[in-house]
Amino acid sequence: MAKAPVLTPRADDFPRWYQELITKAELADNGPVRGTMVIRPYGYGLWERMQQDMDARIKSTGTQNAYFPLLIPESYLTKEAEHVEGFAPELAVVTHAGGKELEEPVVVRPTSETIVNEYFAKWVRSYRDLPLLINQWANVVRWELRPRLFLRTTEFLWQEGHTAHATCEEARAFAARVQSEVYGAFLRDVLAMDFVSGRKTAGERFAGAINTLTLESMMGDGKALQMVTSHELGQNFAQAFRTRFLTQDGRQEYVWQTSWGSTTRMIGALVMTHGDDDGLRVPPRLAPVQAVVLAVKGDEGVLAGVRAIGDRLREVGVRVHVDDRTDVPFGRRAVDWELKGVPVRIEVGPRDLERGTAVLVRRIPGTKEPVAAGALSALLPGVLEDDQALLLEQSRRRREDHTVEATTIEEAAEAAAGGWARIPWATLGPEGEARLAERGVTVRCLVAADGSVPETEDQRGNVAVVARAY
Amino acid sequence: MAKAPVLTPRADDFPRWYQELITKAELADNGPVRGTMVIRPYGYGLWERMQQDMDARIKSTGTQNAYFPLLIPESYLTKEAEHVEGFAPELAVVTHAGGKELEEPVVVRPTSETIVNEYFAKWVRSYRDLPLLINQWANVVRWELRPRLFLRTTEFLWQEGHTAHATCEEARAFAARVQSEVYGAFLRDVLAMDFVSGRKTAGERFAGAINTLTLESMMGDGKALQMVTSHELGQNFAQAFRTRFLTQDGRQEYVWQTSWGSTTRMIGALVMTHGDDDGLRVPPRLAPVQAVVLAVKGDEGVLAGVRAIGDRLREVGVRVHVDDRTDVPFGRRAVDWELKGVPVRIEVGPRDLERGTAVLVRRIPGTKEPVAAGALSALLPGVLEDDQALLLEQSRRRREDHTVEATTIEEAAEAAAGGWARIPWATLGPEGEARLAERGVTVRCLVAADGSVPETEDQRGNVAVVARAY
Repeated sequence: MAKAPVLTPRADDFPRWYQELITKAELADNGPVRGTMVIRPYGYGLWERMQQDMDARIKSTGTQNAYFPLLIPESYLTKEAEHVEGFAPELAVVTHAGGKELEEPVVVRPTSETIVNEYFAKWVRSYRDLPLLINQWANVVRWELRPRLFLRTTEFLWQEGHTAHATCEEARAFAARVQSEVYGAFLRDVLAMDFVSGRKTAGERFAGAINTLTLESMMGDGKALQMVTSHELGQNFAQAFRTRFLTQDGRQEYVWQTSWGSTTRMIGALVMTHGDDDGLRVPPRLAPVQAVVLAVKGDEGVLAGVRAIGDRLREVGVRVHVDDRTDVPFGRRAVDWELKGVPVRIEVGPRDLERGTAVLVRRIPGTKEPVAAGALSALLPGVLEDDQALLLEQSRRRREDHTVEATTIEEAAEAAAGGWARIPWATLGPEGEARLAERGVTVRCLVAADGSVPETEDQRGNVAVVARAY
Repeated sequence: MAKAPVLTPRADDFPRWYQELITKAELADNGPVRGTMVIRPYGYGLWERMQQDMDARIKSTGTQNAYFPLLIPESYLTKEAEHVEGFAPELAVVTHAGGKELEEPVVVRPTSETIVNEYFAKWVRSYRDLPLLINQWANVVRWELRPRLFLRTTEFLWQEGHTAHATCEEARAFAARVQSEVYGAFLRDVLAMDFVSGRKTAGERFAGAINTLTLESMMGDGKALQMVTSHELGQNFAQAFRTRFLTQDGRQEYVWQTSWGSTTRMIGALVMTHGDDDGLRVPPRLAPVQAVVLAVKGDEGVLAGVRAIGDRLREVGVRVHVDDRTDVPFGRRAVDWELKGVPVRIEVGPRDLERGTAVLVRRIPGTKEPVAAGALSALLPGVLEDDQALLLEQSRRRREDHTVEATTIEEAAEAAAGGWARIPWATLGPEGEARLAERGVTVRCLVAADGSVPETEDQRGNVAVVARAY
């Protein structure tokens, strides 16, 4: 059956495909204030599932949730020099409130290191209070000149972790733990996304950090997306806010800190990683709806049949939705579910009912076959796990197939037209990094010779992963 | 054992007791910007439990979560005349962003009816799209001149539901359903809080609503607190934003809407309802920690003992925390847990270990008795349910004991010095309402003669519940 394309094909215009998919799958709309967005129920359902899973992982590190104010006195931002320099151009400033001009303007938080430190300085007294491990789920505002839904929005939702430790080593280990046990495991095991784990170069670090760890993934067009970051803040904010503690041997010392965040950008990453020309493909472990059971027609037997299948699938733990809106043409509904990327469709018409079969449509491998309706409950959990694995495998293969080992800056720049390049950092260095930047190519991260995250920027054998990026 | 009081007694200075409890139980701190607050992990843990429970109840009505932008063009607010009049004095306004003055100032949302309608007008086409049932968990900002932690804060966290329906009757029924099935059930069954359910007078309605339903509870000092509200918005916002739908017979009509919210104010209500001179008392069904097992001393047997008790309690579904910080004096830890209001403490010392006993301290009835350690798992679930019921009963009894049937405005005003008064609305009326307001007493709500929520303000037999309020 030939279908009119629902979306502009990716190969024709990737950005347009992305925008169309987000609109037609009802993930989000543009907000009225430039760069803001409305996250629609289907998109927000993805975010809720991400939050639930991440929140459990964050708590398993001993971190507790709290909530710090949205509005921060402007003076706080200026206490850490690099920090204010990094964020000043993006700030939204409240100058009037309660019908009056404010004596001191307040900024809408772009991130919370400053206000968190103001309170850590009050709460931390002695080594007994450390480590202090806090996370918050919140909205932040960074004025965005080139907005794109989910990827770069003026307001976005995120979690931001903030921790204080007694030693540099502890802080470093904690940032690395979050990066692998929380973020890395979540991306790989739930989002089915491959990534490279590395450290940012000095030029790409978070404003105020002494080191930034990053996970970078390859999108469907070969560009890179920074998925999540974890920062070692050293004692920079602690010194600015005098966040000190009494050591076991009676000295006052500044705490060592980390911060780390993941955002609604991950929804955009999901689209650009797993989406195809028919729409989104949602990894089964993430999917709010794993299987939709569609009544092809509205006769009573079919409606009873789809509901019974739905009930049986729920019993084996499948997140299922029964689509019995038979006043909407079947074809339109099928296309909608395809756009939304629900992993499995089970279609039941009058003839299926007679035969005791159903049509099983797997969105991820793109297969369609009749199965015995009675076999679905036994079949589906395995199908969903297989399709989860297939998405991860496709994501990994994409990166491997589109990553070039480059020996010169020229080679690296050329490779970055359609993928990534790996080039020895000793060959590139900060000077080469600047030359690549002129051509729109950035160092996404440095990885050690053995593929691990380097301890230092100039560790022998470091390789730079370079790419165009979102 | 005589104890030095940890808090100013309620009878001496209720507001001071409240402030001290919130600080010492580590629920929240004042934020740097006037009226804002930092919700500390223990306070936020209460909010997370509230969110989880409420979110499930909200979803069971068919409502889906979404997210609308924080920043709203100022012009949206002015589209509904009563709405802007109500909120203008409380708005925080962003005039500068991205290093420039904005062409049109944007407000930080005080509530989202306007921006929600902008999108409902796009999403709703025909009767098939109705009802549209949306909720969001978000922060809002209303500039507060007389802030008080949790009760009135410049920024607070809440959920706001927004729905659109084809008829006035459907909208009305939905608002009533949320009020009883979501809010009423949650307050009674989880927060263990008694309340009166009624409708607001015209003077006390939400800005832009045609009717506001409210649940009002009596605090420990006899004052009233508006716990949650649900509004029938009629077609006011629909007309302002042209939110219309095609009816089944082909006409264009404005939708009928509701909105409804519950906030972090509920944490303040919890404190003022169940708190006593020793601190908070958390209802067991809400409590993030239902039972804390304390090692009295740090010897190995005791530590192994408390951990074993903790494990066994977890197995029977009790949310348990093992307190083995034996480098902190036992007395101080006991006082801390009492302040935090954990329903049950289980104390184990070396002598208990010898005897195979533990000391069971129930925070809610205030009892303390030795029990066989092996019996705890069987005992505790019932104890927690009993104590949950006791809190609700105490809350109900307080209201009944401190509510006076008044026949004159003078009697009502006098009764409101230490409690509530009920007075026939036919006796009071809008004029009497204004006279009471001059004395700091407000009509909390109107209830029908049979105790139900009145259909109209001037329904025969309506009774006004009047009180001083937070």
